[in-house]
Amino acid sequence: MFTLDESEQVTHWYNVVADLPTPPPPPLHPGTREPVGPDDLGPLFPIELIMQEVTTERYVEIPDPVREVYRQYRPSPLFRARRWEQRLGTPARIYYKYEGVSPAGSHKTNTAVPQVYYNSLHGITRLTTETGAGQWGTALSYAAALFDVQCEVWQVGASFDTKPQRRTLIEVFGGTVHRSPSRLTESGKAFPEDHSGSLGIAISEAVEVAAQAEDTKYALGSVLNHVLLHQTVIGEETLRQLAKAGESAVDLVVGCAGGGSNFAGLAFPFLREKLAGTQDPRILAVEPSSCPTLTRGEYRYDFGDTAGLTPLMKMYTLGHDFVPSPIHAGGLRYHGMAPLVSHAVHEGLIDATALDQTECFEAGLEFARTQGIVAAPESSHALAQARREALAARDSGEEKVIVIGLSGHGLLELGAYDAFLGGRLEDDPLSDADLASALAGVPEV
Amino acid sequence: MFTLDESEQVTHWYNVVADLPTPPPPPLHPGTREPVGPDDLGPLFPIELIMQEVTTERYVEIPDPVREVYRQYRPSPLFRARRWEQRLGTPARIYYKYEGVSPAGSHKTNTAVPQVYYNSLHGITRLTTETGAGQWGTALSYAAALFDVQCEVWQVGASFDTKPQRRTLIEVFGGTVHRSPSRLTESGKAFPEDHSGSLGIAISEAVEVAAQAEDTKYALGSVLNHVLLHQTVIGEETLRQLAKAGESAVDLVVGCAGGGSNFAGLAFPFLREKLAGTQDPRILAVEPSSCPTLTRGEYRYDFGDTAGLTPLMKMYTLGHDFVPSPIHAGGLRYHGMAPLVSHAVHEGLIDATALDQTECFEAGLEFARTQGIVAAPESSHALAQARREALAARDSGEEKVIVIGLSGHGLLELGAYDAFLGGRLEDDPLSDADLASALAGVPEV
Repeated sequence: MFTLDESEQVTHWYNVVADLPTPPPPPLHPGTREPVGPDDLGPLFPIELIMQEVTTERYVEIPDPVREVYRQYRPSPLFRARRWEQRLGTPARIYYKYEGVSPAGSHKTNTAVPQVYYNSLHGITRLTTETGAGQWGTALSYAAALFDVQCEVWQVGASFDTKPQRRTLIEVFGGTVHRSPSRLTESGKAFPEDHSGSLGIAISEAVEVAAQAEDTKYALGSVLNHVLLHQTVIGEETLRQLAKAGESAVDLVVGCAGGGSNFAGLAFPFLREKLAGTQDPRILAVEPSSCPTLTRGEYRYDFGDTAGLTPLMKMYTLGHDFVPSPIHAGGLRYHGMAPLVSHAVHEGLIDATALDQTECFEAGLEFARTQGIVAAPESSHALAQARREALAARDSGEEKVIVIGLSGHGLLELGAYDAFLGGRLEDDPLSDADLASALAGVPEV
Repeated sequence: MFTLDESEQVTHWYNVVADLPTPPPPPLHPGTREPVGPDDLGPLFPIELIMQEVTTERYVEIPDPVREVYRQYRPSPLFRARRWEQRLGTPARIYYKYEGVSPAGSHKTNTAVPQVYYNSLHGITRLTTETGAGQWGTALSYAAALFDVQCEVWQVGASFDTKPQRRTLIEVFGGTVHRSPSRLTESGKAFPEDHSGSLGIAISEAVEVAAQAEDTKYALGSVLNHVLLHQTVIGEETLRQLAKAGESAVDLVVGCAGGGSNFAGLAFPFLREKLAGTQDPRILAVEPSSCPTLTRGEYRYDFGDTAGLTPLMKMYTLGHDFVPSPIHAGGLRYHGMAPLVSHAVHEGLIDATALDQTECFEAGLEFARTQGIVAAPESSHALAQARREALAARDSGEEKVIVIGLSGHGLLELGAYDAFLGGRLEDDPLSDADLASALAGVPEV
């Protein structure tokens, strides 16, 4: 386990926009299709987050009250996976950066805390959000408790019904959970009460409530630039911890990518080093074969939500009305990808690959039995790809240095592991026909 | 968060027997009622553990392979609970030592690893054990995976039926789980298959299987001297971490006590300092009011199991056929208490108190919303007592230093928190009549 001294703590988030060879295309207003300005976002976000969304400064200072909360669980540990290396018989040196130690059990806490903090500066007393797998709702609920802000979470109906522990955890931290579609919003009432819901409906409900009340704003847990910015604390710490471990040249940085914030948080500081020529790692995003946004989607302007209410973002997309197979990595079931990650992939700076979920759970099981950590189903995608690379290194004899982003623990997802152990888990890669049908819904811009 | 450098790592377990003013009474053979010797334990335990059970050496070196596994999660973090202090408005400085970061999510890993390691030295290929709440079965399953030993766990039927996640976690680590009473043993077959089981029955099944096979031994997760010895790594680290925090005089050390190993692991190194006169902390064990072994039990020879097959141990006991109320802190539902802890309490070196579970969950909720950790229901007993002391310090204005042993996380016990949040949790303190009835079963020795 590699830690950092007080004097080595990260004090600034890193903004990759400052170093990208070409600027990312701007988001467009869904009505006018003109570039979105800071004013358009005012009803939903506080000014500090809006400025972070558009800034081109290389570094943004982390406010003291946020750093104080970070200190409760940061630096998150960087581990060398020695037992797993031995089991695989690989000469590769495998490191994993583990965000599961955070209060919410995932990287989501890193952005929930600053988001709540900035809102609290403006007298906001209530935040609304949606949650699918539940990690984001948990993180926002915890952060809200710290700053005496109320937190209301619209949880996708199917998830609400099947994962009562996740709802309880949000409530333990003080948040309120509504099954979506709820009877509290017009967006929800448009659907029957027993509808299984979707992330798109839940977003609409949370946004509707936030837009109607002066003291209420909305918070988003991935995709946007400011969210990715907050997550860069992961990669900044990892670089310093690797230096302490004596590693100055990483060969591969690998993380799972759903909306893209976990991946970007680890990857962007490495991308800075790559662009500066100090290191030359391959940076690799892993997604599920049933929701292969980067590997099979198109790089086009599309909506962030199903209803088409959000700005149009230039990103890899499968189409905003795409409904992925109900795989267990709920956090990876998103039709789009963060515009900054999409842009970097399109520029050839970052690679992507897609894996079937059973291979991921197989790797997760092996990892648990050697390293003692039950990875979230999302994180197991990074493990499975690292395993492939480590086995290739075994065959080639190369002493590769592999760094894995382990975004969270899977202790509330043991039902998924049970399904895998019981042989009840199947792969469901996206078919060409379904892909074509989904892409047909992307608007012409 | 206070950590330790590589050179400050704990290298030896501490044996409190070397420093106790009077020697603890020996265990007695259940048949002859003569003191038990090392030979009597040979069928169940490897020689190293038997020697640790009876040693009077002050320090026992931690073997390298065990230290290597410890390094994966140790030193466990010591935190200052600043936000909770603020919420309580107390001048007390509250520290908590958190064992929930271990692979099994509790302190149990600390003894599971050396127990499996010593067994592996003697060609043992299978270990059997029982589990109630499930923490111990999880820890042994994980440790067994590391040393390529099979692990079979008999889980109390009621727990097996209501906590499928716990069974899954044991299986993820590679262990096998049997619902107890099983059809695999004579002890199990004595009960109907749908019987809800008990820790007593599960122990009998695991012991029966271990006694019948050459390559199989049994492992116990608490109560015995060698188990307490392994846990002292907790208190040794805490003393060093407190020194780094600038605290050389602790006023209160508080932990929950079920079988006693978590409590002793934190407390015994502090007791050494107390006996040496370098510090003078009050050392306080907290137990549930429904299973008040130390506060209302009698200090007598009694059996460790329900069936009366184990040696007779001099300990505080409620009677070996006592069945406690089904409170959620499953790890605190034991009729007896570790002989070493019992002896220290009887000698007046350690105090004890009992609390109702609703007060404990209330403290657990407050702790989660400030410190971001969902404590195990067992650990919440230590939190509730610390809360009382911190509020008393607020009223008296005393700058007390309080150290809490937080034995594990409660992420697999969210159903208990849900019951508390929903107002469905009741207190059930042991009645005088039930106590008298249970004590009537203690044998005359």
